[in-house]
Amino acid sequence: MFQDITTLLLDPKAFKDTVDLFVERYKGKDISVVAGIEARGFIFGPPIALEIGAKFVPLRKPKKLPGKVISEEYVLEYGRDCLEMHVGAVEPGERALVVDDLIATGGTLCAAMKLLERVGADVVECACVIELPDLKGRERLNGKPLYVLVESH
Amino acid sequence: MFQDITTLLLDPKAFKDTVDLFVERYKGKDISVVAGIEARGFIFGPPIALEIGAKFVPLRKPKKLPGKVISEEYVLEYGRDCLEMHVGAVEPGERALVVDDLIATGGTLCAAMKLLERVGADVVECACVIELPDLKGRERLNGKPLYVLVESH
Repeated sequence: MFQDITTLLLDPKAFKDTVDLFVERYKGKDISVVAGIEARGFIFGPPIALEIGAKFVPLRKPKKLPGKVISEEYVLEYGRDCLEMHVGAVEPGERALVVDDLIATGGTLCAAMKLLERVGADVVECACVIELPDLKGRERLNGKPLYVLVESH
Repeated sequence: MFQDITTLLLDPKAFKDTVDLFVERYKGKDISVVAGIEARGFIFGPPIALEIGAKFVPLRKPKKLPGKVISEEYVLEYGRDCLEMHVGAVEPGERALVVDDLIATGGTLCAAMKLLERVGADVVECACVIELPDLKGRERLNGKPLYVLVESH
């Protein structure tokens, strides 16, 4: 069990097996958008997107994306933060997967889903490598399915 | 020509073709480390690492990596910044590729190479999608080869 995915990345086979588990689950599901949350969602999202033939949409911290964006604030233990997405990156009706390394309280994933839903996308599922179930983040996802590979208590 | 790689990511075939160009160049070259620079180097580095069977080592902004790190400062147009790498992530003698989306003045890539060389790795090459050659970043890489897919003037 690990909460720091950087150790996983040091083992090429373990990293590949991890990505493959997601790819097996999502290929053939008509998903055209993989949205990855900055910064560790950028590590897992693109390999999944490439394998299932979807576009990769980065959801970034404020003022990191050039061009026109929409923003969604969320609450952290220690204040507020915000995620942004490029306007025009996702079309209404597209089927989207949200990817991050870890779900803790679920606030970031919730903001990510809101961004996608505001532009009319259908969020199919959220996918994380690790869940910290004691923090009950899953309950904040408004009933959207969450798929994780490991739970860490 | 584009300087914003997020538009490239929206075209699954163009994104895959981009990654494949790097994979073709680096597979079979005995590279065991792909080091990606936060945050957009995280988008291109992992798919390359997965395809060539190398580990992925994230080089992050200060205080983002848990555990023991080494740090390397570098100069920006508007001040200073710093990259960090986990101690123990790379062994002496490993052959490493440094990946980022874009080379501008070259300061970030230079700091990335220094981190890898401080732990005894052999930096084989730096790979970027885009070069802004007018900023002469290539000249700051101390003779290390730089491979880019497009130049933007």
